[in-house]
Amino acid sequence: MQTISEKVVGRLSRYRTLLTEQKDGERTHLFSHEIAAAMRLSDSQVRRDLMTIGTRGLPSRGYEIQGLLLDLDQALNQTRVHGVAVVGAGNMGRALIANLESTRTNLRIKCAFDADKSKCNRVYSGVKCHPMDALETVVAQEGITLAILCVPAASAQALAERLVHAGVKGVLNFSSQALRLPRTIALEEIDIGNYLAKLAYFTIHPSKERRNGRHEDR
Amino acid sequence: MQTISEKVVGRLSRYRTLLTEQKDGERTHLFSHEIAAAMRLSDSQVRRDLMTIGTRGLPSRGYEIQGLLLDLDQALNQTRVHGVAVVGAGNMGRALIANLESTRTNLRIKCAFDADKSKCNRVYSGVKCHPMDALETVVAQEGITLAILCVPAASAQALAERLVHAGVKGVLNFSSQALRLPRTIALEEIDIGNYLAKLAYFTIHPSKERRNGRHEDR
Repeated sequence: MQTISEKVVGRLSRYRTLLTEQKDGERTHLFSHEIAAAMRLSDSQVRRDLMTIGTRGLPSRGYEIQGLLLDLDQALNQTRVHGVAVVGAGNMGRALIANLESTRTNLRIKCAFDADKSKCNRVYSGVKCHPMDALETVVAQEGITLAILCVPAASAQALAERLVHAGVKGVLNFSSQALRLPRTIALEEIDIGNYLAKLAYFTIHPSKERRNGRHEDR
Repeated sequence: MQTISEKVVGRLSRYRTLLTEQKDGERTHLFSHEIAAAMRLSDSQVRRDLMTIGTRGLPSRGYEIQGLLLDLDQALNQTRVHGVAVVGAGNMGRALIANLESTRTNLRIKCAFDADKSKCNRVYSGVKCHPMDALETVVAQEGITLAILCVPAASAQALAERLVHAGVKGVLNFSSQALRLPRTIALEEIDIGNYLAKLAYFTIHPSKERRNGRHEDR
């Protein structure tokens, strides 16, 4: 299957979250307009997205939840397990360690790192915290492919470069420092201050756009 | 000035972050291509965005940093102060309380709420944590307009509705539960699991798109 665009992958991943929530419920099928309403997308957007992975609903019953989940898992390679490192074991890092794994079956948080020696060798929610100078060794040993950066802005770029050099292929950056990494490295950056600034703006100037909430184009 | 689109507001807010970092540096001016490179945007995108707020650079020197910051502050209403409530004072909530305010001068985290009685009446980084049943009273008293939801998925929707009822105009949702709120309410949702799922996908299927990292369309 050819590479799907970033926007579509983002939405497919969200459909998967929704369907996972529904899969043990009473319904066996969902219509595209129901998926669309839950996601604040248009009906036709949902159908187009699911066509890209070769799935069609039945006009009379919609999409079969279990079958669609299997298709989504395959398209998104959810069957392949990724080792994840959390870099920075402050409150944010520890919140991610505690909460993330339950929602994603193919992500395994295998290690954490922190510059604070008092955190090193402690275990947070089952995940051991290592000193920063063990980063290269542990990332290689554990076969880490994804890293979540929860460190102060000033140290983010240097740590990201070390992670990439150690073999990490994707970085999720929570620091407010925008990173410069090779284009071959997948990179997502979440600047929470920017999200709030947008919210603040739209409390004063109501958006005229149809969408609101989870982004259609994410 | 007319309402700016959500995508443009997102980018303007990011330009503002970049320029704030630069404003005490040696440079007084920045060229659009320099802003573009730092943001992984195209040159023409940056110029178009800044034209929407009526700012043009000089061909010979680019944009004057201080002047552009003032224009951005005005366009984004950064001079208007917003009272922010953090709902859920677990690790994530406390991380936001500790780190957010320093980066955004017009956002004031004024209160936190938690269902855990042992957290109530404690003060985290200068912010008092109240019991959930005081939510309506404190939100009204403090004139809160924005709320950040850091609660488990199961309680997110009910709490969001209470916040809106109490007068909150914008919600930033960190729970994995997609919210349904009136369209008049500004809503941003950050499902961290989805970001990681996208990263995982693009470590296997390298993106053919030019962009990587901070989204041009955010």
